[in-house]
Amino acid sequence: MPSRYLIAPIANPELATRLQQKIDGKTKPLGALGALESVALQLGLIGQTESPRINHPHLIVCAGDHGVTAEGVSAYPQEVTWQMVMNYLAGGAAVNLFAQASRFQLLVVDAGVNHAFANHPGLIDRKIGMGTANMAREAAMTRPQCEQALSSGTLLVNDLHSQGCTLVGFGEMGIDNTTSASTLMARWSALPLDVCVGRGAGLNDAGLAHKRQVVARILARHQELTDPVDVLAAMGGFEIAMIVGGMLAAAQARMAILIDGFIVSAALLAAQAIHPHVTDYCVFSHTSNERGHAALLNHLSARPLLALNLRLGEGTGAALALPLVEAAANFLNQMASFESAGVATQSA
Amino acid sequence: MPSRYLIAPIANPELATRLQQKIDGKTKPLGALGALESVALQLGLIGQTESPRINHPHLIVCAGDHGVTAEGVSAYPQEVTWQMVMNYLAGGAAVNLFAQASRFQLLVVDAGVNHAFANHPGLIDRKIGMGTANMAREAAMTRPQCEQALSSGTLLVNDLHSQGCTLVGFGEMGIDNTTSASTLMARWSALPLDVCVGRGAGLNDAGLAHKRQVVARILARHQELTDPVDVLAAMGGFEIAMIVGGMLAAAQARMAILIDGFIVSAALLAAQAIHPHVTDYCVFSHTSNERGHAALLNHLSARPLLALNLRLGEGTGAALALPLVEAAANFLNQMASFESAGVATQSA
Repeated sequence: MPSRYLIAPIANPELATRLQQKIDGKTKPLGALGALESVALQLGLIGQTESPRINHPHLIVCAGDHGVTAEGVSAYPQEVTWQMVMNYLAGGAAVNLFAQASRFQLLVVDAGVNHAFANHPGLIDRKIGMGTANMAREAAMTRPQCEQALSSGTLLVNDLHSQGCTLVGFGEMGIDNTTSASTLMARWSALPLDVCVGRGAGLNDAGLAHKRQVVARILARHQELTDPVDVLAAMGGFEIAMIVGGMLAAAQARMAILIDGFIVSAALLAAQAIHPHVTDYCVFSHTSNERGHAALLNHLSARPLLALNLRLGEGTGAALALPLVEAAANFLNQMASFESAGVATQSA
Repeated sequence: MPSRYLIAPIANPELATRLQQKIDGKTKPLGALGALESVALQLGLIGQTESPRINHPHLIVCAGDHGVTAEGVSAYPQEVTWQMVMNYLAGGAAVNLFAQASRFQLLVVDAGVNHAFANHPGLIDRKIGMGTANMAREAAMTRPQCEQALSSGTLLVNDLHSQGCTLVGFGEMGIDNTTSASTLMARWSALPLDVCVGRGAGLNDAGLAHKRQVVARILARHQELTDPVDVLAAMGGFEIAMIVGGMLAAAQARMAILIDGFIVSAALLAAQAIHPHVTDYCVFSHTSNERGHAALLNHLSARPLLALNLRLGEGTGAALALPLVEAAANFLNQMASFESAGVATQSA
């Protein structure tokens, strides 16, 4: 599996020096654009150019259901997954509004929702099953199912790349997918369960305690697994595995990857376990309010752009952060230099 | 002077309840849009409506020079002020790019730059003088000059209001205006000088120590003043006073005010000293990296939207934050409700 993706590290000291010189020559005090300067440098290294462009950005929202719902670990019923997919298709969800405002092209993918959707021109059908199996009792996915999900995500992103897309974001919908994300986080970060497991869409204290016990059971059941794709198959979800495949394809194609919230960050952990350099290509949009996300970002050495206490998923954080990523590319490409604008530099 | 502006508090418990019900009915877990929910509620209270709109947002960038430059408190020469104004007019500065991307209409105002500009269609001439007097030796402005600046800002904003503008942001350019802002902050917040005074555009340690001494001298020289307009005249700047006048007019007209960085926040302190309820109308765009800004925001009980370690001024933080403010209004106005979308609500 790892051999299927060829992902190069982005480090390039010579190009980094040229990019830093270009950044420092802009009409502003040294370092005055803060985090945007770091993103500009990273975008240059990702694209191997002093003039990186954000072309045709796409936000892929993958939806799937989870067999672990049988364990009673969510405050919402499973049918919310398909109902929210219909909401995306009707344009009424937060991610629709935010993506449209950011001119982020939204793709809605059925990765494995437990609902027979009628044909809809806006829905990309990559359904692997009517939800995963209950990972508290068996592997969530068979190995072939997981590989199919990885492959579907890869093909979707390869297709966008061939159309000139240089940045891809991921979002997700799936009742109980915070359970899967928490389990993957605990498995790969080795952080304690009380850090990894949170309230999801709104569990009370008793629900949270129960969810923590369920996650502990899942971890124990699958603890012997070591191959990262086997781990992902056992404890992931269709939508999560599809995102993992999309991330690996994006990194291989040297596209920038805009990371959304807790579930997408957990998917990145899985992608990183398959290929460590995938994180080089990631820009982190926000720290969410879901317990575990801040610690997970810290584990990934990530410096997210936003901290708005969001905890909605869907790709909403990525959609809100895209204008900041574009601002980073734009200042690098279009802002005047001290020389071009005839502005005096620091006197000291 | 205070009687010139009529600024009502925005508090309205009955409307707040209706707004919160509308927010809670949207297709998302309760509170899941975090800070955007607070902004949406505030925008509704500002506009006295359940459907607040951000119409024709304008960013007013005021430029002025400072007599205190004679004390050697900046790393950049004074001519950078007019050179940067020319950069704004040519469209090459960071604020141009960020405002354009955010569809934030940019207005560039000469409040009192020490330069004779040729006529330029993009430059709004409200010049009060060729820079202020040296506030380390005398009042920066005469009382009539300060009132003229307040009045010019007020008229500019009244004009925008009459054109249907519902949100105004402010930015500034003026070599040494962090000295003025630090002095105003120390005077009105009563926080210690080492918290209030920072490196501005890039002072070294010796420069910072000197700047702190100069600020201490300015405070001592004008310590007997109590009337807020007298204080502003003594220690402010033409561009700062113009922004103060604009803020007061915006609040009186029930427009939202988007606060930029350190200097604009210090201007808000002055506006607040004139009329306390002006802060009700303020959305805070970001915490800047200039020393003092985080403490100043804390003093104002502000919760800024961004923390990108910017320290550029110009209105760049406001321009980057505008899409988030629009996202808050948009979700309130356009997002589907559980009822309208047929999505099941929390089961517990």
